[in-house]
Amino acid sequence: MLSKKIGYSFNQPALLHQALRHRSAGAPHNERLEFLGDSLVNLMVAESLFLFWPKADEGALTRGRANLVRESSLASVARQLDIGEKIELGTGEMKTGGHRRDSILADTLEALIAAIYLDSDFETCRSTVLPWFEQQIREIQPGKIEKDAKTRLQEWLQSRQLARPDYQLIESLGEDHARIFVVSCSIPEPKLQEQAEGSSLRLAEMAAAEKIMIKLETQK
Amino acid sequence: MLSKKIGYSFNQPALLHQALRHRSAGAPHNERLEFLGDSLVNLMVAESLFLFWPKADEGALTRGRANLVRESSLASVARQLDIGEKIELGTGEMKTGGHRRDSILADTLEALIAAIYLDSDFETCRSTVLPWFEQQIREIQPGKIEKDAKTRLQEWLQSRQLARPDYQLIESLGEDHARIFVVSCSIPEPKLQEQAEGSSLRLAEMAAAEKIMIKLETQK
Repeated sequence: MLSKKIGYSFNQPALLHQALRHRSAGAPHNERLEFLGDSLVNLMVAESLFLFWPKADEGALTRGRANLVRESSLASVARQLDIGEKIELGTGEMKTGGHRRDSILADTLEALIAAIYLDSDFETCRSTVLPWFEQQIREIQPGKIEKDAKTRLQEWLQSRQLARPDYQLIESLGEDHARIFVVSCSIPEPKLQEQAEGSSLRLAEMAAAEKIMIKLETQK
Repeated sequence: MLSKKIGYSFNQPALLHQALRHRSAGAPHNERLEFLGDSLVNLMVAESLFLFWPKADEGALTRGRANLVRESSLASVARQLDIGEKIELGTGEMKTGGHRRDSILADTLEALIAAIYLDSDFETCRSTVLPWFEQQIREIQPGKIEKDAKTRLQEWLQSRQLARPDYQLIESLGEDHARIFVVSCSIPEPKLQEQAEGSSLRLAEMAAAEKIMIKLETQK
């Protein structure tokens, strides 16, 4: 039973059905609920971190929140609640395994959170939803959230008084919504250069910086 | 009196003081509160739009929210509440007119929202904060939020069955946190090319598309 898994019984089952109905299955689907749920989960996670990490600064809190609400994290919460099999999909999405796709799982989780909120109130929604994230919130710790590779590379070089890395965009391919950036990262000392790609300039640069970091950390 | 302007009296005045204290004035400052307030205002605005615009799709809702919670909008709400003069700043920020700066006003408004929330509860915070945004929420309407220039250009060309625009990155200057992108936008028919810059690739492209749109709309 879904209600047992999620720890909530709906007063208005129509809200639950809408939350579980993907756009590909036709209206009324869950996209508007997903919009509202996105803000709800953001706030609930933000508040938890604010309370659990009384000494963390804004940067650590922001990294922590980003970590917990990113698509793959939300999808793993959705899996933990066995939501996948309950999602109503159009035939095409069903055939291509939409039930297991991170993006669909994460969106449905957000829609479900909004449905609970609309069916009850903020306090009820929060006390229902936070336990879903409890394990993940416990697991991440302010100091342990890994800094991104660009920051680590920068700090590694700085601490050795070495020159800063240079990032160059090699090319950008594809349309706006599915762009690929190819970037190089080079450092003069020790002389290294790596190339990597990503769906944003920043992600591509991080991937390139990560490659340099691996070289730096493995070379003697 | 601030409490009269904002429509809320604090039970814990220390929370109010912290909310009004900028980082430049030293600890305890308002940055952690700002983190929490950011999520709160996001949710409150999202919920209002969700309720006021029952037919708007996710895209319109997302554009509406972005419009209402962007820095300049938050700063204008802060001005409406006369928050500027109440902000505690370090000497440097004070001398350079920090009281009037959009970024400081917007951040302080977010911190104030979080302080009200922590001093009361979600319902109280919402019923205090939403009236501040009432006028702005009324003024924007789903259909009236201007689509960005890239979308308008795309639609303009599509409706005339003309070829899509081509965006090229000309160069990217500066460090990661203060990067400038120079981009060109060109269309084959009518043959036009414009260059523009922006702090992100997307903003640069929008600026270039805007220039093309102006030419298209003014030429006969």
